[in-house]
Amino acid sequence: MGMWSYALAYLAAGLGAGLVTFGAGFGIGKIAAAAMDGTARQPEAGGAIRITMIIAAAMIEGIALFGVVVCFLLASIKP
Amino acid sequence: MGMWSYALAYLAAGLGAGLVTFGAGFGIGKIAAAAMDGTARQPEAGGAIRITMIIAAAMIEGIALFGVVVCFLLASIKP
Amino acid sequence: MGMWSYALAYLAAGLGAGLVTFGAGFGIGKIAAAAMDGTARQPEAGGAIRITMIIAAAMIEGIALFGVVVCFLLASIKP
Repeated sequence: MGMWSYALAYLAAGLGAGLVTFGAGFGIGKIAAAAMDGTARQPEAGGAIRITMIIAAAMIEGIALFGVVVCFLLASIKP
Repeated sequence: MGMWSYALAYLAAGLGAGLVTFGAGFGIGKIAAAAMDGTARQPEAGGAIRITMIIAAAMIEGIALFGVVVCFLLASIKP
Repeated sequence: MGMWSYALAYLAAGLGAGLVTFGAGFGIGKIAAAAMDGTARQPEAGGAIRITMIIAAAMIEGIALFGVVVCFLLASIKP
């Protein structure tokens, strides 16, 4: 019975890494798509839009890196 | 039966980290997309829009960081 | 019963790699589609749009590479 804890830890690491990347990709993708759209509409606001995009994307990046570290921890549990 | 508690704790850590990142990415993504859209329409309001975005995104970030810490705690339980 | 931990580790490695690639492909795809759209609408803003796209895509790439490393770790567990 004891091996199930490792089994589910490994399953959680894989599925968690997938979900984390999906969430980060979805969020940053939406942000950057809007940034590109805005830059095309107002090229002279491109610098301000890029700074705003980097701030928001860095926030999502911070959460996602922490989430992937949790998954890395789960994957490196030794039976 | 006792090992199942560790098993499900690990499973919850991985799935939880994934869901937390998905929620944060979705929310901050929506906020920042609207901010970029607004900056492109009124470039002279870019500074005010950016401050509003940072306040709202920091609120989501606070909840998400707490959620990831809970997942980190679950992942670091030793059997 | 002990073999189940390896079994689920391999299952998680495969599903995780798939989800990671799906998320990264979705996010970078959305970004690049918007970049192309914007360049077509304002060709003179092409350079600024391309720099913005590379920054955002590199952020998603960073998370996705970490996620795939977790899956690689799971796949290389030796029974």
